[in-house]
Amino acid sequence: MSIINEDERIQILKDLVAIPSVNEHELQVANYLQQLLASHQIESKVLPVTGDRANLVAEIGHGQPVLAISGHMDVVDPGTKTDWDSDPFTLTERQGKLFGRGATDMKGGLAAMVIAMIELAAQGKPEKGTIRLMATMGEEVGELGSKHFLDAGYMKDVDALLIGEPSGWFVAHAHKGSMDIRFTSHGRAAHSSMPEQGFNAIDPLLQLLQDGNHLFREMNQQTNELLGPLTFNTTIIHGGQQVNSIPDKAIAEVNIRTIPESNNAEVTKELKRLVAIQKEDGAQIDMDVYMSQPSRAVQGDSKLADLVAELGKQASGKELKRGGIAPVTDASNLLAGKPQDFPFIIFGPGNNTPHQVNESVPKKMYLQFCDLYQQVFEHYLTD
Amino acid sequence: MSIINEDERIQILKDLVAIPSVNEHELQVANYLQQLLASHQIESKVLPVTGDRANLVAEIGHGQPVLAISGHMDVVDPGTKTDWDSDPFTLTERQGKLFGRGATDMKGGLAAMVIAMIELAAQGKPEKGTIRLMATMGEEVGELGSKHFLDAGYMKDVDALLIGEPSGWFVAHAHKGSMDIRFTSHGRAAHSSMPEQGFNAIDPLLQLLQDGNHLFREMNQQTNELLGPLTFNTTIIHGGQQVNSIPDKAIAEVNIRTIPESNNAEVTKELKRLVAIQKEDGAQIDMDVYMSQPSRAVQGDSKLADLVAELGKQASGKELKRGGIAPVTDASNLLAGKPQDFPFIIFGPGNNTPHQVNESVPKKMYLQFCDLYQQVFEHYLTD
Repeated sequence: MSIINEDERIQILKDLVAIPSVNEHELQVANYLQQLLASHQIESKVLPVTGDRANLVAEIGHGQPVLAISGHMDVVDPGTKTDWDSDPFTLTERQGKLFGRGATDMKGGLAAMVIAMIELAAQGKPEKGTIRLMATMGEEVGELGSKHFLDAGYMKDVDALLIGEPSGWFVAHAHKGSMDIRFTSHGRAAHSSMPEQGFNAIDPLLQLLQDGNHLFREMNQQTNELLGPLTFNTTIIHGGQQVNSIPDKAIAEVNIRTIPESNNAEVTKELKRLVAIQKEDGAQIDMDVYMSQPSRAVQGDSKLADLVAELGKQASGKELKRGGIAPVTDASNLLAGKPQDFPFIIFGPGNNTPHQVNESVPKKMYLQFCDLYQQVFEHYLTD
Repeated sequence: MSIINEDERIQILKDLVAIPSVNEHELQVANYLQQLLASHQIESKVLPVTGDRANLVAEIGHGQPVLAISGHMDVVDPGTKTDWDSDPFTLTERQGKLFGRGATDMKGGLAAMVIAMIELAAQGKPEKGTIRLMATMGEEVGELGSKHFLDAGYMKDVDALLIGEPSGWFVAHAHKGSMDIRFTSHGRAAHSSMPEQGFNAIDPLLQLLQDGNHLFREMNQQTNELLGPLTFNTTIIHGGQQVNSIPDKAIAEVNIRTIPESNNAEVTKELKRLVAIQKEDGAQIDMDVYMSQPSRAVQGDSKLADLVAELGKQASGKELKRGGIAPVTDASNLLAGKPQDFPFIIFGPGNNTPHQVNESVPKKMYLQFCDLYQQVFEHYLTD
């Protein structure tokens, strides 16, 4: 018998979605969860980061083994609200789906984890071992929250990690890394009728970015069996203001999704080499790697993964595939220093609507995960 | 004996510079010139274009031959006024130079032409033939004013054309053409971790612009003996808004300075071919040739050019070189349909500061041109 019924489970997700924690205000989410847990006699700690931003940690049970479970409290910007069919911060049910910013990424998974902990604790469980919830801030931009957890030692005694990002009925044990790099090119202005009196700042960027496309898409095309190929994309470019003036400045930003076979350090080295080629031709280009998260890939056949696959099959009625996903998670930080056979999976309710207009989570799947997580947590610690 | 003394000649230029005719308000310049001419019994006609924009035409003398003289009344934007050492719209003398927006490009040449007409008319000249002043609007952006003069038939009976753009002590009888082209690339947005779900709108532009650089700078590098090579430059590029989103739109603008050996139609054809290559690879690129002015080059040894070289040598004390200049002038329009041996020169007071901060004209040169133009006009018609 559950002590939080279905309507209340939906209401909790609704309450979480209503907090507009768009790359800030995670403290409000943490405070809400702290009160919810406290009303069920579970202690938790809010760990302030800056201003209105904080992590939250809560435990049930005692001693080893320790299963760490993690979800982030921030969401991405909803964009133009009028593009949505309903208000992004008001969880709204339509045709079996719950719509709202964060419904799938990942207030759904976070709510299901917290509810599972409350249900277990109400039954006096776990009898052995510890479930440690690490709710993070700032996952969508820079993964600062998980860095804080790592630095504060919360991963030291952990035996396995489950991240509740939206995998749906899929057991992910790998994800790509991600790098954001800004290139700034400085030239010299001139009237466009006399370009030889200036230096076109756009030109070396065109060459550099083309070289990058060529290098990372054709020449150095390694593929990870779980993650597929590294991807390289120019996502922002801006240069020049007047059609009749040679531009004196141009910037470009690229996003690169890395794999273990072409890691972040190697990519940085290659791009520095491409920049140096442009400098030899007289260009002045600054390169700023302002975000860099490594890929994470562990063995797919851990006890945790096997357990989730088995219980997930029972719940969904179908075989669960295993593999990698593209998006970075807090595992980039949390698994720093852990070995290749460390038990780690990404498993949470959701579909393919993260970051999109009309983001949603299937209502049935969300409710299934509230129960499924209880089974996973309990069996992992006791089996 | 002149009827407008040096101080008055400077004051006229000062009055013209004080009218901020930055790509509009040429009507105010035309009205000022009309009053000035009228006060010396010279009739003129203001030819309205739109709102506060107009051409002005004035004649002295009668019948053939007709020497057309032309100058534009608009100026380019002064940019950040505080970058100037003195207010751009207040003609200010320092170290023998007169500083102000339009001092050299080309209210100096325009004022000197008008003053020369007034001085000649006061002497009852010319005894034979006509001097026709065509003061144009919108030369700096699109050359609309000269198009209006051409369409209205003002060039039909003209025997020679002198444009008072700032050549300094140089006789120009050729200038490059100019084209402004906008490329708009349409893609499909996606999260940057899953670029295969979208289409990067920046990528085909990178390739297209690189192809353009390659084609026009290396492969097809013809050179005109007067004008030098065609030049091709990407002067504006904008695409993408978020580093973690595959951009769904990107635009680029290029400016091309054409020569007779690679004319505007040929350049358009080549660029359409480069766009087609990208389209074959799945890109969606629109190409908009929104400005296209042809190059103009005539023989350098006309009677008008010889006369100017001789009188200019007497005034400056040095041999005047002849050749081409890069910037487009109203001759792009005014010479439409004229033969290769049509007498045409660009000759006016000024230095290399057009479009720049602290634009200036040498005071002595400006005053010399007020007299020199009188001699050129008179001798051309009577010799």
